[in-house]
Amino acid sequence: MSEKLARLKEIIGEVSDLGHAASVLSWDQQVYMPAGGAEARGQQLATLGKIAQEKFIADEVGELLEDLKKEFPDPETDEGAMIRVSARDYDKARRVPTSFVVEQALASTQAIGDWVRAKSQSDFSIFRPALEKNVELVKQYVSFFPPADHPYDTLLGDYESGMKTADVQEIFGALRPKQVKLIKAISEKKQVKDSFLQKKYNEKKVWDFSEKIVSKFGYDFTRGRQDKAPHPFETTFSVNDVRITNRFEKDQPLATLFSAMHECGHALYELGVNPAYERTSLASGTSLAVHESQSRMWENLVGRSLPFWEHFYPELKKTFSSQLEGVSAKTFYKAANKVEPSFIRVNADEATYNLHIMLRLEIEIGLVEGSIEVKDLPEIWNAKMRDYLGITPPNDALGVLQDIHWSYGSIGYFSTYALGNIISAQIWERVNKDIRDLDEQIRKGQFGELREWLRVNIHQFGHKYDPQDLMQRVVGSKIDSSAYVRYLTKKYGDIYEL
Amino acid sequence: MSEKLARLKEIIGEVSDLGHAASVLSWDQQVYMPAGGAEARGQQLATLGKIAQEKFIADEVGELLEDLKKEFPDPETDEGAMIRVSARDYDKARRVPTSFVVEQALASTQAIGDWVRAKSQSDFSIFRPALEKNVELVKQYVSFFPPADHPYDTLLGDYESGMKTADVQEIFGALRPKQVKLIKAISEKKQVKDSFLQKKYNEKKVWDFSEKIVSKFGYDFTRGRQDKAPHPFETTFSVNDVRITNRFEKDQPLATLFSAMHECGHALYELGVNPAYERTSLASGTSLAVHESQSRMWENLVGRSLPFWEHFYPELKKTFSSQLEGVSAKTFYKAANKVEPSFIRVNADEATYNLHIMLRLEIEIGLVEGSIEVKDLPEIWNAKMRDYLGITPPNDALGVLQDIHWSYGSIGYFSTYALGNIISAQIWERVNKDIRDLDEQIRKGQFGELREWLRVNIHQFGHKYDPQDLMQRVVGSKIDSSAYVRYLTKKYGDIYEL
Repeated sequence: MSEKLARLKEIIGEVSDLGHAASVLSWDQQVYMPAGGAEARGQQLATLGKIAQEKFIADEVGELLEDLKKEFPDPETDEGAMIRVSARDYDKARRVPTSFVVEQALASTQAIGDWVRAKSQSDFSIFRPALEKNVELVKQYVSFFPPADHPYDTLLGDYESGMKTADVQEIFGALRPKQVKLIKAISEKKQVKDSFLQKKYNEKKVWDFSEKIVSKFGYDFTRGRQDKAPHPFETTFSVNDVRITNRFEKDQPLATLFSAMHECGHALYELGVNPAYERTSLASGTSLAVHESQSRMWENLVGRSLPFWEHFYPELKKTFSSQLEGVSAKTFYKAANKVEPSFIRVNADEATYNLHIMLRLEIEIGLVEGSIEVKDLPEIWNAKMRDYLGITPPNDALGVLQDIHWSYGSIGYFSTYALGNIISAQIWERVNKDIRDLDEQIRKGQFGELREWLRVNIHQFGHKYDPQDLMQRVVGSKIDSSAYVRYLTKKYGDIYEL
Repeated sequence: MSEKLARLKEIIGEVSDLGHAASVLSWDQQVYMPAGGAEARGQQLATLGKIAQEKFIADEVGELLEDLKKEFPDPETDEGAMIRVSARDYDKARRVPTSFVVEQALASTQAIGDWVRAKSQSDFSIFRPALEKNVELVKQYVSFFPPADHPYDTLLGDYESGMKTADVQEIFGALRPKQVKLIKAISEKKQVKDSFLQKKYNEKKVWDFSEKIVSKFGYDFTRGRQDKAPHPFETTFSVNDVRITNRFEKDQPLATLFSAMHECGHALYELGVNPAYERTSLASGTSLAVHESQSRMWENLVGRSLPFWEHFYPELKKTFSSQLEGVSAKTFYKAANKVEPSFIRVNADEATYNLHIMLRLEIEIGLVEGSIEVKDLPEIWNAKMRDYLGITPPNDALGVLQDIHWSYGSIGYFSTYALGNIISAQIWERVNKDIRDLDEQIRKGQFGELREWLRVNIHQFGHKYDPQDLMQRVVGSKIDSSAYVRYLTKKYGDIYEL
């Protein structure tokens, strides 16, 4: 190995170690840390972040990258890809002044506090000044980069390398009328029964069942674990230590099962990355949208399918015999797929979910362009909700204040959720061509071939290919919503007899 | 504040953050980490340690310390103490070459593995080569420092700043014949009853009871928590996040209670340090022996006292009514203080414990001097056990292989355990002069005044005073075993009617 490559790997390896250490600290912060630990933990995370940043943006790294680009010009090789991705990250990190990073971190700490208060009082005016500041900072962030076709491109590109605002608008534009039409058709049909989901379920039994499911998916508890946290998430400490969190809410007892499947989908991606990429820029999934495609696939295309419940329902029914008395697998399956326009994105069903995202994307673009002002957000939000979903949030907590993302200055992120859905259906059609009896395997509780297919075709590559390139390799086309429309149409056609 | 002091504090603060981050990673490693995480975790900890070391031994730190020593010459001020302690640590860190630190770390990783195998097969010869290497490295370590009165001084001084081998030998020399005599006297008396401790106790109930006790001691679960781990320990992430671990073993069900009290004693020390010392060299207790005095005080002088059980026993008996049927508080108290020479140090009672330590100290000194060879250790060990405790280990696992310390190259540490016992009795006599009705308070389950006394007189100072100076301030004399002898004589005189 070239001496320069070895030196670069050493530095990037240390930066990666610092990042993983920070992940452990954040995980603990959300999972086990006693309240008293908060202040010092913030300081510790800031120090780890600062040192990692200092190490990464050092002149030496830039010089190594310049030399190595010449030495390894082929991006199809692991070394070439590693250098390409590191160089892109380096360029970004060098463009943003440390003083700005600190200012943004402080503003976001303030804004998160304001958002929590605003949400609890359902009063947008409490959050407004902090959000205005965050939007200003985001505009300033964009100004550090060369002009793009659209200022929002820079923000989006941080999450989906190579994607442009116009691309997403085109994808969403094609999908929106079809989803709106589908929802309308469903709303004219008889609603499915789900009263049995409103009963009392024992938390520990639900939790254990969730672990039974993800174990069958292939989530290996010697390389991961599931802990309780206020919000479900997946976090990676190394290719052999990928953890998930989950929660239990009395009024949505079975959400715990779907959250486990969702986070397991993220985890399987991380666990499947080529171990040789450890401590390099290629470890971890390639983009948020592709990551979300994996979580949504296991949660929805697998976990909300009829074959899945044909396998798991008998055991579920045995576990919750009184709650599920007289309920058939088919009835349960329909309930798990109930469509109903609702205010809260994270609880939305598959048919309505993407519309929640489109609404946010339009608002974000407007804020960045300057065509929408923060002060008008509650009104704009509610108007769009009426437009897309036919319902009006009764207050800001159930409307514009519901998500935390804008409080930590994260603008450009939301569309990856919908792109993930879209991608999951594209991959699913492709998988089903290679594994002809996939439904039958799922019906038998066999997930090994599916998981292995995903590992070989997607997971192992980690960050090697940009999302659109990966899609081209895997499904032979770029991101496109037609498979998703076919999937929704067929699924809800059956359930609602459209 | 002086600009130079601010700069020093900034650097030391970051070094402290890295250390605390490493503590979180180690805690997770022992408490929650899935097996797969081990390799990467070792790498992450190595990186954190390396970066902390690099930051701390930078020339800039040395220059700042030199200037600041002149600016803040008074060690009675916080600044003066901070600079004195940092300068001492700096001098030590600079003397030991990084290459040696790496060599020692690698040797210890190897040795721990060998020790585990040797212990499981009860075969010292498996461990011997690694231990010989460790002893060599320890001698080399000593050679980096200026010659002391005795080569062991350098090792001891790492744990007990200012203490010399001759001091410890003098203290132990005075104590040993008295403890040996006491054990002999006890062995001639009728043994206490404790068959009720060999019954089956419910793990969760014991665990909950342990948390009830430490809560009453004042361990604040908003600033700490107790988790399950293979070995009980205390670990500090900040002055407001100090955690303990514990375990449950079927054959010693109530050991969980005493371990909780022990670790709680360590934790209360850390929780009581002046918050202004956070992220400086003064945060954390001053030495291992003083730390151990706090854990042993809460475990033994409080937790194995009659007043303590007069308070807690009724509730314990209610919790374990069948196991403790017909057992009085006094009988239970006696059982909790049963004296019986035994092979394993960590299970030893108060009367025999120190002899286990003295044996180890003599062996360590011999190894460092060269008067004892590693190959002869099993024989020497067993001979000393016969001499001091009148029993002969049937195999190496119950003898020379029982402790992990030597496998990670830690020589110089053991005597702090016995010193902790000795110090705890000195402090206890002093406390009882200030709190005349302490027994009565304990009998009522009131621990606030005791805890506050310890906080004000010991805990708050953190690392400000060296152990012997602290003792001079608190009890008016240096470390001396006479209080401990008085304590043991009175306690066992009552229990065994000597």
